Amino acid sequence: MADFSQLPIRDDLRGLTPYGAPQNTVRVALNVNENTHPIPEDVARDIVESIAGAILTVNRYPDREFTELRESLARYLNEETPDAQLGADHIWAANGSNEVLQQILQAFGGPGRTVLGFPPTYSMHSIISAGTGTQWIAGERDEQYTLTPETVTRWIEQTDPDLVFLCSPNNPTGTPLSLETIEAAYAASRGIVVVDEAYAEFAPSELPTAVSLLEGRERLIVSRTMSKAFAFAGARVGYLAADPAVSDALRLVRLPYHLSALTQAAAVAALRHAPEMLAMVGDIREQRDRLIVELEKLGYAPLPSWSNFVLFGGVDDPNAVFEALLEQDILIRDVGIPNHLRVTAGTAAETTVFLEALARL
Amino acid sequence: MADFSQLPIRDDLRGLTPYGAPQNTVRVALNVNENTHPIPEDVARDIVESIAGAILTVNRYPDREFTELRESLARYLNEETPDAQLGADHIWAANGSNEVLQQILQAFGGPGRTVLGFPPTYSMHSIISAGTGTQWIAGERDEQYTLTPETVTRWIEQTDPDLVFLCSPNNPTGTPLSLETIEAAYAASRGIVVVDEAYAEFAPSELPTAVSLLEGRERLIVSRTMSKAFAFAGARVGYLAADPAVSDALRLVRLPYHLSALTQAAAVAALRHAPEMLAMVGDIREQRDRLIVELEKLGYAPLPSWSNFVLFGGVDDPNAVFEALLEQDILIRDVGIPNHLRVTAGTAAETTVFLEALARL
Repeated sequence: MADFSQLPIRDDLRGLTPYGAPQNTVRVALNVNENTHPIPEDVARDIVESIAGAILTVNRYPDREFTELRESLARYLNEETPDAQLGADHIWAANGSNEVLQQILQAFGGPGRTVLGFPPTYSMHSIISAGTGTQWIAGERDEQYTLTPETVTRWIEQTDPDLVFLCSPNNPTGTPLSLETIEAAYAASRGIVVVDEAYAEFAPSELPTAVSLLEGRERLIVSRTMSKAFAFAGARVGYLAADPAVSDALRLVRLPYHLSALTQAAAVAALRHAPEMLAMVGDIREQRDRLIVELEKLGYAPLPSWSNFVLFGGVDDPNAVFEALLEQDILIRDVGIPNHLRVTAGTAAETTVFLEALARL
Repeated sequence: MADFSQLPIRDDLRGLTPYGAPQNTVRVALNVNENTHPIPEDVARDIVESIAGAILTVNRYPDREFTELRESLARYLNEETPDAQLGADHIWAANGSNEVLQQILQAFGGPGRTVLGFPPTYSMHSIISAGTGTQWIAGERDEQYTLTPETVTRWIEQTDPDLVFLCSPNNPTGTPLSLETIEAAYAASRGIVVVDEAYAEFAPSELPTAVSLLEGRERLIVSRTMSKAFAFAGARVGYLAADPAVSDALRLVRLPYHLSALTQAAAVAALRHAPEMLAMVGDIREQRDRLIVELEKLGYAPLPSWSNFVLFGGVDDPNAVFEALLEQDILIRDVGIPNHLRVTAGTAAETTVFLEALARL
């Protein structure tokens, strides 16, 4: 067996280590912002029945255009943003939003091109940029990890990027992003503006998301995932809404038949049950707000969050707290921000276990 | 709605059209080398039961290391090549062998690097090379689309590629590739040698495949798929066998959690039934051999084939034949080789329909 450094690997990969949140089996896993609620039994049954149907023709290639899935996703987004009036042509999907972002960078980024992001943000943004040869430019955020229209405009004017990646709400901070900032980024930029809305369903539901900005902005892409609100992390379904021209561009770089017949069947079935799936979102929001209140009471400094997790500061020794919790079979996340830790809002019971353990430390 | 040429798409993508075999709904589809036999009912039931189990935890991310799947694939290959003694560490998998090949090119190819292939060959080889910025070098084949050790050695010496892509048996010609040619390519090359064995199960079963060459050749990668022999095209499961260092390298470029929990469960279940799944392979080989005999009788010039399809020459007007068959609801493939057409070996009934229709033309 060779060491991989003995293989003729690309020079820019030498010395790197793979992405890897730990995959420990613990009693309370609140580290990767999963939806900790299993999907309801009747929904699970419907998904399995749909897959059983798809298996009958699994010897054939899947629908390369995943038309029914795109129609289902468009209907779902139209429920949320009725003015959007999206059709299947406005939707694209892939194996997780990571693959959606990779395809966007393959089509609009790549060697000789740049993407501007604002760390701390979703760590895969810069990793996928590197993987596609797109140069990552790290902008800076305002106080408390917010991002004003002025800041984003200044960074775009100074760096003239081919793409801008925004994250709304931001991960790992949970910070909301205003529509004004997105509009300003679009107006200042000549390139593609991607708003990663992986956690959008956990934001206040009466407020519009970036989907409401799509009309008339053909360079704007809103990426979403079924991993979080839909409790579908294991099924790997990410998607985007944008001008239909974006899908046409992505057809040039996607691997043909990239979405399996099983994935398509499972996602279409889950989307039929959207209201039921989203019922869990309210419970999770409640636990998130409870985390913020209780973390403050414990003397920590939680940030405002519109997502299903809370980043909290005021941790003298994050590694010690992380390890002490892990000893009690509770896994949270050290995202590398000094004196901060991140915890996912789980079920009420999981939140209680976490808060009580933290209080005892 | 914008035209995608108005978007800031990469210059090298302008003017391209997406890969696309037609997705017509026809009575007899013999165009994309699918296994036209649906999977046996008891296997389907077992797969659905396994997926039903996986759905219970689909709110969680899947096993990023897909360990059980890699173990199952290793066992399967060891049945075929007992001397190989492969373990999970020798195996990697992705959403179709297209994604396996893309990850190989991301790790070992990319901008500034070259890959040598021998057209006519699987069209995605050059497309994925372009998609990853790897320069494609088109070598030339010997008579009747074969490839001798001398020819492959000469091309490698002349072009010094970073990767060599071989296809065994070759698609779209069906042509066998000798182990001697693969050994010669490896010996002549300083780079990664990929043998695409998508159709290997349709070759004479008493002969060893390139898997038998892996021991001691850490730059050799054998890629496989469950799409063909396993009748699993819709499930998107490609894989490779190689030195464990290759998987280590691919972990640097794969998107985390790229294989869904449903895909993993489905593939593991199907592999439990390998002998039953492969029972169809014998039938398909028989139909392939029948196609060759009958096409010759009809005055065509079929090439020898070790795959589940036959390329046949002597077609004066391929487009006219293609269209005449399509009018009778029979879809085959014009792969762009003058005076040739390609037909998949389907069930006995499908083969009969095709041959009778062709005879009537």
